[in-house]
Formats: sequence, structure tokens, C-alpha cells
Amino acid sequence: MNDNMDLEKLFRPKSMAVIGISRKNNLSPGRIILLKNEFEMNVDVYGIHPEGGNVEGVGLYKSLSDLPVTPDILVIAVGPDDTIGYIRECAEYKIPASIIIGGGFAEIGGEGKKRQALLKKIAIDNEIAVLGPNCIGVYSPPLLDTIFLPTERITRPPKGSVALISQSGGVLIDQFFVKFKERGVGVSTAVSIGNRAVVDETMLLEYFSKVDPDTRNIAFYLEGFQEGKAREFLNLAKVSEDTVITYFGGITKQGKIATESHTASLGGNLKVLSGALKQYYILQPHSERELLTMLKVFDVLSYKKNPFGKNTITFGEVAILSVSGGHGVLCSDMLQDYGLNAVWFTEEEKEEMYEILNPVARKIASFNNPIDLTGSVLDKDIENMIRYLSDIERIECILLLLLPYPPNISFQIGRRISNVISNKNKPIITFIPYVEKYQMIIESLELSNIPVFHSIKEVVQAASALKDRTRFINLKKKNYFWETENTK
Amino acid sequence: MNDNMDLEKLFRPKSMAVIGISRKNNLSPGRIILLKNEFEMNVDVYGIHPEGGNVEGVGLYKSLSDLPVTPDILVIAVGPDDTIGYIRECAEYKIPASIIIGGGFAEIGGEGKKRQALLKKIAIDNEIAVLGPNCIGVYSPPLLDTIFLPTERITRPPKGSVALISQSGGVLIDQFFVKFKERGVGVSTAVSIGNRAVVDETMLLEYFSKVDPDTRNIAFYLEGFQEGKAREFLNLAKVSEDTVITYFGGITKQGKIATESHTASLGGNLKVLSGALKQYYILQPHSERELLTMLKVFDVLSYKKNPFGKNTITFGEVAILSVSGGHGVLCSDMLQDYGLNAVWFTEEEKEEMYEILNPVARKIASFNNPIDLTGSVLDKDIENMIRYLSDIERIECILLLLLPYPPNISFQIGRRISNVISNKNKPIITFIPYVEKYQMIIESLELSNIPVFHSIKEVVQAASALKDRTRFINLKKKNYFWETENTK
Repeated sequence: MNDNMDLEKLFRPKSMAVIGISRKNNLSPGRIILLKNEFEMNVDVYGIHPEGGNVEGVGLYKSLSDLPVTPDILVIAVGPDDTIGYIRECAEYKIPASIIIGGGFAEIGGEGKKRQALLKKIAIDNEIAVLGPNCIGVYSPPLLDTIFLPTERITRPPKGSVALISQSGGVLIDQFFVKFKERGVGVSTAVSIGNRAVVDETMLLEYFSKVDPDTRNIAFYLEGFQEGKAREFLNLAKVSEDTVITYFGGITKQGKIATESHTASLGGNLKVLSGALKQYYILQPHSERELLTMLKVFDVLSYKKNPFGKNTITFGEVAILSVSGGHGVLCSDMLQDYGLNAVWFTEEEKEEMYEILNPVARKIASFNNPIDLTGSVLDKDIENMIRYLSDIERIECILLLLLPYPPNISFQIGRRISNVISNKNKPIITFIPYVEKYQMIIESLELSNIPVFHSIKEVVQAASALKDRTRFINLKKKNYFWETENTK
Repeated sequence: MNDNMDLEKLFRPKSMAVIGISRKNNLSPGRIILLKNEFEMNVDVYGIHPEGGNVEGVGLYKSLSDLPVTPDILVIAVGPDDTIGYIRECAEYKIPASIIIGGGFAEIGGEGKKRQALLKKIAIDNEIAVLGPNCIGVYSPPLLDTIFLPTERITRPPKGSVALISQSGGVLIDQFFVKFKERGVGVSTAVSIGNRAVVDETMLLEYFSKVDPDTRNIAFYLEGFQEGKAREFLNLAKVSEDTVITYFGGITKQGKIATESHTASLGGNLKVLSGALKQYYILQPHSERELLTMLKVFDVLSYKKNPFGKNTITFGEVAILSVSGGHGVLCSDMLQDYGLNAVWFTEEEKEEMYEILNPVARKIASFNNPIDLTGSVLDKDIENMIRYLSDIERIECILLLLLPYPPNISFQIGRRISNVISNKNKPIITFIPYVEKYQMIIESLELSNIPVFHSIKEVVQAASALKDRTRFINLKKKNYFWETENTK
């Protein structure tokens, strides 16, 4: 990292100025950024327009020199040539950080490449932490949001433990923001790096890993590593006390990784890349959905109310508890691919489970693994079974497939499960169908930070993610003599 | 098929009797079935209780002989021994069909197996179409619903073109009903086959394929074929004018297919099975999600208002039209795995596309495939681009990745796309994020039967499914000299 650049100013500014505000077009990016920060966010924001005046009641300053303070950050939303002029002004006024929204740089080749080189030189010479150009900016709740799309059009995730860094602005606000919100996954800060002329994924990994106190998990969507910096990225990841996850786009034949020479050292294809990432303790999901599943589990477990305590998954030994035989079958089918295994129950254990169940259900239930409690199940059966399974030490995680359709399952069941788990600290991953009328059950589990998923596959992926994370944490501890607790 | 059994009575009965109604327990399965059909469905339903009386205002008959009509179907929800007695009564009163809800038959082994053999003998000797035992019954809207769970607890899919047959009742009502409803996929009839002592998947394939006029797509969830009948199933599928899809559970080492000798002729493992199924023109999704994607597309295209007309996908040549570069990259990455290919545009075509776009967007847009229109896109750009791409013959399908976040995209965009496509008949599959506030855009596409998905992967799976279906239809036509139109 360029130690002289202060990335904290990008993500935790006290004050911010915005340039490129149209007084006529209410959809101009600069105007949207000014107004959303003025009305929705906590940063002190100042709009600049050469002619002053106001937009929607918010007064504008004629120049940087008119501002009452030197802002921590200048958001520049003008054409490429004017952008260079304003970066020079950042240098002149000693503004430590800038976000450049507009394009017209390296991505258009030729002149644009030269322009970007000049931009980079000014930034480095003057120690300005420049994000972009050609980016969608920063969302750092509750402080600032420089995403130049109207807030009412986009979906914002809640505050949480995940630093989210994306090379594509569209992927950030759609594939991540929408699905984070759906799943209740929270971000500490979300960053669109655009052309990454100055601030790149490696600098961000270092910042979020070492400095930012709110971040516990760092996730990247990349279409390739920054030229010449892959090695540094990997080494930083290897010693990071946060969980580091990368997801790559553009990985097929036509994809960037295969074609860009700068990643040749990693082998240039996904298989080799994937192997390399593992050696540096970087988690690599196989699909976007698996990435989201991982982040949901890790985010939940990063909060103080962690229902699993110190319990982790070392061997992948699970018990499947279902109220539908078919669901148990579908779940079992997936275990092997995800490095999990259904424990075998002894005859004694099967008899004990038989005794726990109500007299109607016990006759038709199946006590193999998957356990099928059948539609004759009562609340107390589920509660008792979870308590029983929690006490079996070789079971590292319970996969609970809960269909609330049987008429004797009450809306109290979520709370009853939460109570057992909170006492037992046994990892449990639950499946409950996404049906609005069962929201009360889902909520009572989520209030206790018990992860709920709406597909069987995600349940299996989540348990597998816990296992992978356990392994990396143990390896890091062994190799780097960490403190037991994250020291940030 | 046992030609003497009248399966139509199971799915299109005029009258139905229910036995096994508790007057004390308002959650008893028989009572739930009686009342939901009395109050919600169109079939004439009669409840039987040895002592008569009434439940919740609905009068009960003391015996079958007291009923004013001979019912088409008898639903039996009593213990196993009594069940045999009532099946004998079906024979005596010449009731042509029966659904047996309760268990205690082959699934418990020993005595149960003998009991099931006896049941089967009585049914066959007397030509009674028996469904079950140990099943959840039939949902055939708007006529009948014998699912013994309270309707307010479950989620019912709309009426549509898919006959849905499941070996697991839990999988039927949860994995299918919930997700069908979410995606707007409709069922003609849904059937839980349970132990399939008499009526099995092969008989149902024949019935839905040859007889049922509402069915155009037949989907099976199976944990193995009925003993000795796999060959007949495959041969029926090969000549079916409907699209046949199978999805198997229990396919891993511990799974049923690998362990049950009756499927040994198919090789006993998924890879061999999968190859065999293809040769019989049976579609086989790789995941439950892909199954749902297939059914959504096929269901939509089974309606009279089919926006793609006779256009099909033969070679898998697609154009990706996106407003986000990252989405285009992620989509491209998936094409190869699904047998699809992004067409190459000529320089002339790229210039023509440049001319179509608004002056701001054209400068920053990318006209390779994927096409990235960028956030500067206007409604008319999307409309014009779809019209333009529709006229390029070698493009078989447009994959439209529409993020409605750019402020100039209006809520009219869905209607404008629908209008172009309905005129052009070019297959189009759309991605729109699942965000409630964009429901108006989603609805205007769905009203014109244009399939909308909420993940990029499903868009790719849907185009791939159309390609596979085209191939099978062409092969069937070639081999069996079908009429051009489905002749049911």
C-alpha cells in the first residue's frame, strides 16, 4: 500500500464536496449524489457549481476556495478533461481523497490511457487516494453513498460485517445489493473500483483487513487481478484475520483472466487459479449463489450474539433432521459434493430417538440419517430431537429441514428451536420454505442469529462453507501465531 | 397400462366419498380432506362416519350404501387393516377409483408387504384405480384436492400445462408447489404416488400423455422406476407428444437407484441413466432449480399466446443485451456449459447498432456480444436494439439482462419490449432483478407470456432448455411422423 494515502478518508469522511451538478437536469449524476448525501446520509456535503445558485433548495458554492472547510473527499462527476483539472485542484487544496465517477480513461484505449496515466501520476505525487475513474463509488452506511443512481431505484443492504469490493458497478448494486437485502446480509462498506487507476483491490484488502473495525469478512468480485499485484494480494490474504472470499467473472475462454498476461503467473485458468487461491486461504465459491450463502453465514457469525459459540466444523459430520423423507433424500444427495458426511447412528441411539418422539410419529418415523420425523411431528418432538442431537459430540452440525405444513407445528416452533440452540451452542443450519405466512417462524430464528435458507442446496453449501472457514482459520492460527481473537 | 382402469376418475371425478373422519380431532386427515373439498373445490363430496352426525356443519353418512350416488372415487384415510376392508367395499359397490392416504404397507416391510400385495390383488381383480397407499393424494384444480394438510398452511400453484408426479409428498407440496407459485408455473394435475401399489409413474405418463387434454408437459420426481416397468416408461416417453422431464432423488452411493436391482438394466448410476433418458427424449435437469426453469419456459410456451411463435433454438446462437458490463461477463461465462454460443457481430452490424443508440450512450456502449448499453440507456434504445437484433436471422434467442436502475428507464419499458417481441416472434429470455418496486415491468412482460427470471443463470438455463426441447421435438417428428400439432 502507498502508506501515505489515507483510505479512511474515502470511507469515513467527515466532509465531502461534489462537482458536476446540473441545475437543469435533475437526473445528472453529480446532482443525485449531492442530494442523496444531503438528505439521506450523515456526511457534511457541499455542492459546487461555477455559477452558484441552488438545486432543490440546496445552496451551491462557486468553487473549492469558497467552501467553509477543506473537504476530506471530492466527488468528481464531469467529463474526462475537466476531471484532470479538478484532480489538480485536489492537490492544490490538499484534499486527501477523490472519487471519479466519469469514464473516458483507460477503458476507451488511446487518448484515454494517456489521460489515466496522468491522473495516476498526479494522485501518487500528491498522495490523493483516488477511487475510479469509471466507477459507481462508495456506499458506507450511515456516512456516505456516492452511487449516482436514485436511491428509490436501487436496493441497499443493511449495515453489517462484509466489506464488498466489485470491479463492476452493475454487479455490485444488482447481484449483491439486491441479494444481500433479500438474505439480510450486511455490509460494512461497499466499493466499486472501476478502472482502479490508483486505489485497487490489493490496497482495499489491506485497509479492510488491518484498519476498518467494522469488517470481519472481505468479498471481491473481480474480472482479473491488478497488473503486477496478484502476489501482494495473495500474501495479504494469507495473514488476514478476516475471512477473504474472491469470485471471478470472465473466467471462460473469452474471459479476461485467460487473456490478460498479468495473471499468467497464476496459470491463467480457473482450475490453477482456484488451487492457488486455496493455498492462500482464500475462499472461492463455485457460483454467485454459493458466495451469497457463505456471506450470509459468516456475516451472522460475526455478530456478538453468535448462537454457535466457538463450535466449528472440522470433519463435516452432519445430522439431517427432516419432516419430509424426500427432502432428506435430496439433502443426502448433495453432501458428498460439498465434503460433508451423514453420521451413522448406533442402534442404541435409534432406540433413544424412538423413545423421545410422540407415540404416533415414532411408529412411522425413520431414524437413519436423514432422520424423517414425518408429518405427525409435534413442536416438542423437534425441540427434543435437536436437544438430543446437540449432545452427540461427533455431530458437528445439524441440518434442519423444517416444513411447517403439518397442522401440529405451531408458530412458536422457531422460538423453541432458538432457545435450545442458544443453550447448546451446536451449529445448526435451517431450511424453511420462503412463504410469507411463515415469516414469524423465520424471524424468531433470525433474531437469535440462526441462519435460515430457503433451499436445501444452500443449507448444504452453508455447512460446507463453515467447514472450509474452520480449516483456514486453524491453518492461519498455526502458521502465524495469531491472537485467539481478531485484534482489530 | 391396465386398460380396464379408468384413471380419469382419479383426476376428473364427479363425486367423491371420504372415509376416516374424526368428529373430535379437527386436524384429522380425513376431516381436512372432506372439508376442503366441500368448501373449496368443485367435486361433489360425501363424508362417511359409522355413527353419522356432522363435522363443522357438514352432514356425514353412516356407510357407502347410504350415499345418494355411487362415488367415482373413495378417499380412504384410516389404519392399514381397515383400509383393506374399504377397498373390498369399493369392489362391492363398483367404485372405480380410490386414494389411500395411510401408511402401514410395503414401506414398513414384513406384514406391510403382504398387506400391500393383497391390496394390489383386490384392485387389479376389480379394476379399481388405486393411488397410494402412503401418499398425499391428488390436486386437480378446480375439481379436487385430497392433500390432507390445511389449505391455509400450504401454497397452491395456479392452473397450467404441467402434470406433476412425485414419489415424495413433501417434495411435491414444498419444493414444487411453493416454487411453482413463486414463478407462476401452472399445473394441470399434481399427483403424489406414494407406494404406487397399483397406479405408478408409467400408467400416469400414458394417461397424461394420451388422454388428459390440459397437459402439455409432464414432470416426474422419482427415487427410482417401478420394478420391471422402466422400459415401458422409456418407450412411452419416446413417442409422447408432450415434453417429458424426470428428476431423480436418491442418486448418490447411498441412493436408491444405485441399490435397487430393478434399475440395474439402466446401469445403476446417474451417468448411465442420464444417457439412457436422453435417448428416449426425456429431458433431465441437473438441479431442481434447472427443472423449475425448464417448466417455467415450457409452461409459458404451451399457452395460446406464445410470443415466440414457431421460432425455436436449433444451434444455441444467442445475443446478450445488457445494461451492465459485469452482467454480460457473468452471462458469457455460463454459455459454454449450457451448449450456447454468443454470435459474432460484423463491423457493419456494430456500426448500425452505434447509429441506433442515443448520442450519449453510443460513445460508451460496447457492441461486442455481450452488448453493454450502459447506464446512459433510454427506453427507446432498448426497444430499437431488440427490434434490430430480432431481424438478424442467425440470432436464435436474445438474452436480455435488464437492470431498471438507470434513471431514464421508465416503468413503460416492459410493455415496449413486449410489443416488439410479439411482432417479431423472436425468442427472448429476460433477467430482471426480483425487487418488488419493479413488479410493474415484470408484469407487463409476463402478461405477454415473455419469460422473466431473477438470476442470470436461470436465463441461460432457459435458453438451453429451449434448445434441448427443440432437438427432441425434431427427432420425435422425424422418427414418428407426428402431426405438426399436438393431437390430444
